[in-house]
Amino acid sequence: MNTIISPAGSMDLLSQLEVERLKKTASSDLYQLYRNCTLAVLNSGSHTDNSKELLDKHKSFDVNVVRRERGIKLELSNPPEHAFVDGEIIKGIQEHLFSVLRDIVYVNMHLADNQRLNLTNAVHITNLVFGILRNAGSLTPGIDPNLIVCWGGHSINAIEYQYTREVGNELGLRELNICTGCGPGAMEGPMKGAAIGHAKQRYAEQRYLGLTEPSIIAAEPPNPIVNELVIMPDIEKRLEAFVRMAHGIVIFPGGPGTAEELLYILGIMMHPDNVEQPLPIVLTGPKESEEYFRSIDRFIGETLGEQAQKHYTIVIDNPAEAARIMKRAMPKVRDHRKDNGDAYSFNWSLKIAPEFQLPFDPTHESMSALDLHLNQRPENLAAALRQAFSGIVAGNVKAEGIKEIERHGPFELNGDKDLMKKMDKLLQDFVEQGRMKLPGGTAYVPCYKITT
Amino acid sequence: MNTIISPAGSMDLLSQLEVERLKKTASSDLYQLYRNCTLAVLNSGSHTDNSKELLDKHKSFDVNVVRRERGIKLELSNPPEHAFVDGEIIKGIQEHLFSVLRDIVYVNMHLADNQRLNLTNAVHITNLVFGILRNAGSLTPGIDPNLIVCWGGHSINAIEYQYTREVGNELGLRELNICTGCGPGAMEGPMKGAAIGHAKQRYAEQRYLGLTEPSIIAAEPPNPIVNELVIMPDIEKRLEAFVRMAHGIVIFPGGPGTAEELLYILGIMMHPDNVEQPLPIVLTGPKESEEYFRSIDRFIGETLGEQAQKHYTIVIDNPAEAARIMKRAMPKVRDHRKDNGDAYSFNWSLKIAPEFQLPFDPTHESMSALDLHLNQRPENLAAALRQAFSGIVAGNVKAEGIKEIERHGPFELNGDKDLMKKMDKLLQDFVEQGRMKLPGGTAYVPCYKITT
Amino acid sequence: MNTIISPAGSMDLLSQLEVERLKKTASSDLYQLYRNCTLAVLNSGSHTDNSKELLDKHKSFDVNVVRRERGIKLELSNPPEHAFVDGEIIKGIQEHLFSVLRDIVYVNMHLADNQRLNLTNAVHITNLVFGILRNAGSLTPGIDPNLIVCWGGHSINAIEYQYTREVGNELGLRELNICTGCGPGAMEGPMKGAAIGHAKQRYAEQRYLGLTEPSIIAAEPPNPIVNELVIMPDIEKRLEAFVRMAHGIVIFPGGPGTAEELLYILGIMMHPDNVEQPLPIVLTGPKESEEYFRSIDRFIGETLGEQAQKHYTIVIDNPAEAARIMKRAMPKVRDHRKDNGDAYSFNWSLKIAPEFQLPFDPTHESMSALDLHLNQRPENLAAALRQAFSGIVAGNVKAEGIKEIERHGPFELNGDKDLMKKMDKLLQDFVEQGRMKLPGGTAYVPCYKITT
Amino acid sequence: MNTIISPAGSMDLLSQLEVERLKKTASSDLYQLYRNCTLAVLNSGSHTDNSKELLDKHKSFDVNVVRRERGIKLELSNPPEHAFVDGEIIKGIQEHLFSVLRDIVYVNMHLADNQRLNLTNAVHITNLVFGILRNAGSLTPGIDPNLIVCWGGHSINAIEYQYTREVGNELGLRELNICTGCGPGAMEGPMKGAAIGHAKQRYAEQRYLGLTEPSIIAAEPPNPIVNELVIMPDIEKRLEAFVRMAHGIVIFPGGPGTAEELLYILGIMMHPDNVEQPLPIVLTGPKESEEYFRSIDRFIGETLGEQAQKHYTIVIDNPAEAARIMKRAMPKVRDHRKDNGDAYSFNWSLKIAPEFQLPFDPTHESMSALDLHLNQRPENLAAALRQAFSGIVAGNVKAEGIKEIERHGPFELNGDKDLMKKMDKLLQDFVEQGRMKLPGGTAYVPCYKITT
Repeated sequence: MNTIISPAGSMDLLSQLEVERLKKTASSDLYQLYRNCTLAVLNSGSHTDNSKELLDKHKSFDVNVVRRERGIKLELSNPPEHAFVDGEIIKGIQEHLFSVLRDIVYVNMHLADNQRLNLTNAVHITNLVFGILRNAGSLTPGIDPNLIVCWGGHSINAIEYQYTREVGNELGLRELNICTGCGPGAMEGPMKGAAIGHAKQRYAEQRYLGLTEPSIIAAEPPNPIVNELVIMPDIEKRLEAFVRMAHGIVIFPGGPGTAEELLYILGIMMHPDNVEQPLPIVLTGPKESEEYFRSIDRFIGETLGEQAQKHYTIVIDNPAEAARIMKRAMPKVRDHRKDNGDAYSFNWSLKIAPEFQLPFDPTHESMSALDLHLNQRPENLAAALRQAFSGIVAGNVKAEGIKEIERHGPFELNGDKDLMKKMDKLLQDFVEQGRMKLPGGTAYVPCYKITT
Repeated sequence: MNTIISPAGSMDLLSQLEVERLKKTASSDLYQLYRNCTLAVLNSGSHTDNSKELLDKHKSFDVNVVRRERGIKLELSNPPEHAFVDGEIIKGIQEHLFSVLRDIVYVNMHLADNQRLNLTNAVHITNLVFGILRNAGSLTPGIDPNLIVCWGGHSINAIEYQYTREVGNELGLRELNICTGCGPGAMEGPMKGAAIGHAKQRYAEQRYLGLTEPSIIAAEPPNPIVNELVIMPDIEKRLEAFVRMAHGIVIFPGGPGTAEELLYILGIMMHPDNVEQPLPIVLTGPKESEEYFRSIDRFIGETLGEQAQKHYTIVIDNPAEAARIMKRAMPKVRDHRKDNGDAYSFNWSLKIAPEFQLPFDPTHESMSALDLHLNQRPENLAAALRQAFSGIVAGNVKAEGIKEIERHGPFELNGDKDLMKKMDKLLQDFVEQGRMKLPGGTAYVPCYKITT
Repeated sequence: MNTIISPAGSMDLLSQLEVERLKKTASSDLYQLYRNCTLAVLNSGSHTDNSKELLDKHKSFDVNVVRRERGIKLELSNPPEHAFVDGEIIKGIQEHLFSVLRDIVYVNMHLADNQRLNLTNAVHITNLVFGILRNAGSLTPGIDPNLIVCWGGHSINAIEYQYTREVGNELGLRELNICTGCGPGAMEGPMKGAAIGHAKQRYAEQRYLGLTEPSIIAAEPPNPIVNELVIMPDIEKRLEAFVRMAHGIVIFPGGPGTAEELLYILGIMMHPDNVEQPLPIVLTGPKESEEYFRSIDRFIGETLGEQAQKHYTIVIDNPAEAARIMKRAMPKVRDHRKDNGDAYSFNWSLKIAPEFQLPFDPTHESMSALDLHLNQRPENLAAALRQAFSGIVAGNVKAEGIKEIERHGPFELNGDKDLMKKMDKLLQDFVEQGRMKLPGGTAYVPCYKITT
Repeated sequence: MNTIISPAGSMDLLSQLEVERLKKTASSDLYQLYRNCTLAVLNSGSHTDNSKELLDKHKSFDVNVVRRERGIKLELSNPPEHAFVDGEIIKGIQEHLFSVLRDIVYVNMHLADNQRLNLTNAVHITNLVFGILRNAGSLTPGIDPNLIVCWGGHSINAIEYQYTREVGNELGLRELNICTGCGPGAMEGPMKGAAIGHAKQRYAEQRYLGLTEPSIIAAEPPNPIVNELVIMPDIEKRLEAFVRMAHGIVIFPGGPGTAEELLYILGIMMHPDNVEQPLPIVLTGPKESEEYFRSIDRFIGETLGEQAQKHYTIVIDNPAEAARIMKRAMPKVRDHRKDNGDAYSFNWSLKIAPEFQLPFDPTHESMSALDLHLNQRPENLAAALRQAFSGIVAGNVKAEGIKEIERHGPFELNGDKDLMKKMDKLLQDFVEQGRMKLPGGTAYVPCYKITT
């Protein structure tokens, strides 16, 4: 089955050169990357979080960029059926297809053309993150701070899911916009809730911004109400995009991915240069999830200390209050940017230390080499823990990581006994609460082993 | 507490004369009507379906139209709190306030000015219905048929409610718009579902049209996502508005109100002049509600006959199919209008017989005078049954009706034994299934008595 | 030749009743009125100011309102060719066709339905003027004062015409909007100039509002850049519309029509109730027209006195200054409306005395009965002079007036010698300066005789 | 005097790196270029076509890009006064300021970053032209062919100017858009005319696209109604942009610049690869300019031959016909693009030979080295003649060229006697008809000498 898809949304015309580079050839890595992201987007709403499974299931899928008189079109061979309603592609998915195209082309043309651009240099990394977001049209100047990043697990229970919708509704009623990692669960609920809240307020500038990356998009395909989709090249640039765009952060219950995000933002907020940064952070969930937050909070307190705990507020069972904390902080965020001549849409002045910015490639070697000891500066410990959780996410749901584990067995994590015990406890809790994987598959087999 | 509300949505400038007439004076019925509708709109989301209760609770509420340099404003005294978020009125409700104003003024100015207008004449009634809808901006020319009227109970269970959302989602994915009676339950679910479906399709012309009437608006306040609200003067004109605007009708489980609606449309469709009218009608619900539909269908078959049953399709547990039937019928509706030179937005050529068009005022006298016998033409029986159910709705939830019942006891319905038995059975089922009133109050006390 | 025209712009759906009344029948005066206005609009850009000539030339023209599935359409038989470009109607003219339809229907339905509406009562007249403008969508609430009414002759020379464009450009650069009587000459120049000024400012809310009346529309057809056209029932309601909508008035050189307008506004501004009204009035033209303004000014001074002269400023050869005076006055206008709770879009508080508001029907009898004497209150003299000039305009260019003159010879004007001499002088000047009629026809034959 | 200008129109956020590069430093050529273009844009409407004069007059002018919370702003020191109305910058000019910024940044970042990009390679040159236009938002996919490029002199007489307006009006009435070199004269008239035509048609997608280059923008500043301004790096890329965007070309009377343009397009159209290209070309002017076109036509016939003459039609004194030829050709252009899978907005398939695409730098040496002989392939002769006229334009109005002439005296052109005589005659005609320079300055002193 072949289908021709017309451009929608943020499509750009492509030059002959750009189309050329995306062509399918025996050796083209770029084509593979592009094809896999496209497939992931078409799988919106499917119920698997295993990237490899998805790719294996659709081996006959192909995508071809063709130039036409009205711009380019996409030719899809054997696309997944549920992207279509009565034979017509869902417009939200159609837009996502062209977001994928846009970002893959941009990053590739930019990196390929720029021998000069040293991507181990902080200035250049930040400029690339900025460049991708600007090219995607996601940095609209002139809009007052109103973008709330919502983090949380893809695999949460029905009560937690309903709670994320309610928080979304309250955020929407306050005309705040939503940015998430754009998969299911806590990444979807706040957007759906906000859509209803925005509708009640006739709010027309609604943004449901999804930030993803090629290695996870298959496991967490964007839901179609995401109306801005940006594919960042890797998890570190994605996290940087989140925190430079965020005017506030809400964290719902989640697993290791959520832990990674929390450690990332705490590590950054604890940097001395960021002491004045007014970024509200709320951890929130229904009363049934209270214990979850208490144990996270304890872990943070015992590892990074009280200093870290000061950066967030825990709100239990009060969606309106969570939203109100965000809303009330917006003038502070605005004033701080104004006073510092910093953009509303991109927080240039937030300091991100190299250990948070440089890519961490989770291999058996790099994972076992992590410096997991309590007696170091808390920012450094936060960075190392962030990397540890990042590796576990990869081993759970990213195709590359899954392959590694299949080949060499679980990652080994080691460090001082005390810390390892706390970590083990936290991870055990995640497993028991079903936060590691979507239900419905086989029982969760850990991709890591804790040694001391 | 006093608040000034600025116009939003379909506001019109008012002339000095028009403002004058809305002033609160000792004797002004118009002011009372206007004030009560305004109060009802502000009660959006409240959980009572007893108009009288609501009005009693907010005796200190007042509204005052004031003229200002940028047009008019509303001054509210002691408005219900939950219309506001952090002290700001919800925009959807703000728009509804001005819809109420617009329609009350229009009908009043029109009727007051028109001594000539004989409102027992079919042409004039239909012209008034048309005039109200046109003045409300609800008759947009040039739009292809896509408006699905959804009927169903205000008091339905959680499974049924979720089902109405799913049907709404499927209608929204097919870029169909929704019109309901704008209360809770089956009047709200399809709109919320469609809002998500429309968002996925980036459908920008989304309409969530609520048609209500002064005597029921307090019991069924419009939810804030209703983005077009029209207040028709009475139930008959409201029903006429529904069927002249509908391009398709979906009927969910419901109580006597839903029965009234079904009998109304069947009575009309059975009129010989309407034999060519291509109006798709679907009765649908989750599999748990199958028995409900079977008993309704049986009642129709046994009272109005097979001829009546031909006009609808029953779809169980298949939201996509229900939506697909609507979608597939749209070209037929379009072609029929085209061939007959009739407007897409208003079905002039639908014949509505006088017994369906003239107001029925449910009093103890008129109720007991209803001609409820099986040996008459089915259209006539449909008309009489429609009036019977209309009276029961009034006795249940409309302020006027409730007062009547309080004063004189239940309405008496009588007719031939066989018919009365069937009716009794149906109403008993409604009571048992909790379809008569919102749960949470005291047990349902019937407002009618069946005698034979 | 028959053409079907689709609706554009401010079209409204029509009810069956409304369409019925516009049907061509032997006796229908309404059809004749409607047909003639339609014909006039189609003659946009033609070079005649003789209504009768135009009507005579297009005897075979017909218009027919037909109802279609997407709303109504117009069927034109033998329309003038120059309304079309390569066979397609110019969109501006297409919109005007539906403005005509809208206003004719509104006034007719309103008056026909309202036996109660006593149109000799000031409140009702003003409410009708308001009603027509509101129905036409010309009273947009929420816009700050920015509407400049430009008056001046339809027959002006090339230098004057160019000057009106320059003033228009300067008004446009200051984001002011234009309202005129919508014929050629000084009614067209400011709009064309403002269109360029608005384009330079990317001003998107540009309004080129034309106010006309059935009896003059044929002599002064709206040019197609008029983007809001309103047909008022007669000259008095048209003048009332001008002054209640105006936030400032610019008067260019002109003939008796312009004199009528100047006398009208001066008579109103001199009313004691209007002493606080901050309405800027500028008389302006190129230096070649200086003498013209001096003689007008002298006439006003000698007849209405210094009091009248205080209400206007004469600006010679300085388009930017004329525009600047308007721009600078806008905050005063805004503040005055705010302080008085009056609408920006409609000046309710301006007092218009009955002699300016009640229709004056220029017949030989009424013209000779005018009270043209110097020893009366200046407002009264202004009113009488206004009526005298109004009659001369009718005799020059309105079909009814021309017929009267053909039948009974020139109107006779009489009054005290001194005044008559001044008036004679002014009119002689108009004739010599070619301000009475468009050039190209035969020499101007006066439609009046001055006796003493 | 310092003024802060906020972004308008096609502004983009700038990264820290980008802002850095535009800073004023002693050695920054980029700053000089940027500052001069900015100054030129602010001189819109000034009456000089001498770039050097303008730059000399405003030595104290400075521009500084500053980053602010809502994006960037421009700080202007001592800007020319007439860019402002009552102290506020004209919005059209404000937009142009940010177009300059956008294009300077784009070209600089692109070239600086791309060591790989070989700009002597045809594919890369065309990709750069495409890249600049796409980045400027000037390549909107999905729009049917409707862009008419108008070429002609900046110094034309009043009758010719009025004629260009009338052609513009007729193009506008046919909903065609306008692209010119964006200076005065024949570059301004069609836009102003089209603005009126578009207003009559309520045409909302109106485009007044100005394509210019840094070296000429000061001599031909864009008029403010240009609503898309693009600064191409040099005349060759500007010409390429014109012909790849054009769906039709209208050529009005002009001087050496117009001759350059005509020779350029004829040289391209005569290339064998372009034989199927359906590009309508019309030479048109008022009847007073007929002789001008006859002599151009003769020159073309005698130098490039009949083959060249076939590519254009001469239309005298018939604005509607000129517009009609364009309108009628649009379906052919559309079909050709469709059949060839080529974009409507950018004619990829038009073959441009290297001699037309590679920059020609007019120096005394390169000018005297031109191969101006009749016995060569006509495309080659067209290319050489194009370069000769290009050099004369530079010597007349471009700052660089004027300096060269001041230093070394006139350029020398030599070639075969017969050709040189024809060329001399044509240039003499231009001088006599006042087409070389704007009137008002001193008499024209030729910047070239013809030798044989």
